[in-house]
Amino acid sequence: MKVALTIAGSDSGGGAGIQADLRTFAAHGLHGASAITAVTAQNTVAVVDYVALEPRMVVAQIDAVASDMPVAAVKTGMLATGPIVEAVAEAVARRRLPHLVVDPVMAAKSGDRLLDPVAEAAYRERLFPLAEVVTPNLAEAEALLRRPVRTLDAMAQAARDLHALGPRAVLVKGGHLEGDPVDVFFDGRRLEELRAPRIDTRHTHGTG
Amino acid sequence: MKVALTIAGSDSGGGAGIQADLRTFAAHGLHGASAITAVTAQNTVAVVDYVALEPRMVVAQIDAVASDMPVAAVKTGMLATGPIVEAVAEAVARRRLPHLVVDPVMAAKSGDRLLDPVAEAAYRERLFPLAEVVTPNLAEAEALLRRPVRTLDAMAQAARDLHALGPRAVLVKGGHLEGDPVDVFFDGRRLEELRAPRIDTRHTHGTG
Repeated sequence: MKVALTIAGSDSGGGAGIQADLRTFAAHGLHGASAITAVTAQNTVAVVDYVALEPRMVVAQIDAVASDMPVAAVKTGMLATGPIVEAVAEAVARRRLPHLVVDPVMAAKSGDRLLDPVAEAAYRERLFPLAEVVTPNLAEAEALLRRPVRTLDAMAQAARDLHALGPRAVLVKGGHLEGDPVDVFFDGRRLEELRAPRIDTRHTHGTG
Repeated sequence: MKVALTIAGSDSGGGAGIQADLRTFAAHGLHGASAITAVTAQNTVAVVDYVALEPRMVVAQIDAVASDMPVAAVKTGMLATGPIVEAVAEAVARRRLPHLVVDPVMAAKSGDRLLDPVAEAAYRERLFPLAEVVTPNLAEAEALLRRPVRTLDAMAQAARDLHALGPRAVLVKGGHLEGDPVDVFFDGRRLEELRAPRIDTRHTHGTG
């Protein structure tokens, strides 16, 4: 059985974080491993409390998994602090972990900010260059680029500018645009708009 | 969808802890919620490192879940410290959470001790009286009763003595006995020996 590793926060409610990622991995026939970056007390309403782990503890989890199992792919979610972003980038590079998907989670959908500003630079400079694909939503693209991203044209330019930071591909998620959601994908050659009907999101909210 | 809550450690390798419990819940058609007590860096070989959370953070996770979702059952795994055992008992009682299953995890199967001795008294005096069923293995029964539990007769007496502490039922798991495993069940009326053929345990080792 192939192993996929999620590096993310724990969501007590189970709607997001490592709990949602492990369900997704299982649905695709993968054994899921996890490195927790922060523990949240969270439900469908709000993030009530949270505590971030020390970077060395996040790395210890990654090393425990990678030293014992053949990791076929890695996804990062909420990395909580700048030093954790840097430590994860170091561990992924040192272990040569393949197929890194970076979801640059910076806030819960409740609006509570979960990431300190220093982390944004670490994402751009350390983690993005290692990524197969990065998947920001509009608010995350704005935080990373420090400018508004509110239109389809702005999403396309954001995808190009984020791609220039080093990932093999970028998917800007337009779920919070007015009207039907549109995602924009760019891999350095093709620029594509991906459209899908809105689906029930009751079980997909949270910190990612 | 009914909600089951696991209160336990996180196992990065995915073979035990909340990760295994959430898989079991999902296999039974339940939505899984979780309250993490400790984060371990762990794989199929050993517990490399771990950090216990503060009791108030464990309670915050339980409250976030219980205030928002109708919890139909609760299972505790590795509770890490005596103060966490006490805090969990307080929260379960205050929230009147039903159908409490207590697996009194005290060590990883690797032999690494995960629980301080003070916690054993908290289990006996605070958590067991709230439990629908408690499910110690032989080593855990020995730690709780402070005497050897190595034979079928000793397991039967252990089940009776642990039942006297207040749980509605006790299941002493004989997985580490020589020969075919035998579990002993006691609910105050019936004493039953449950026999099953050994199964592959590759994905069931760890901290519970």
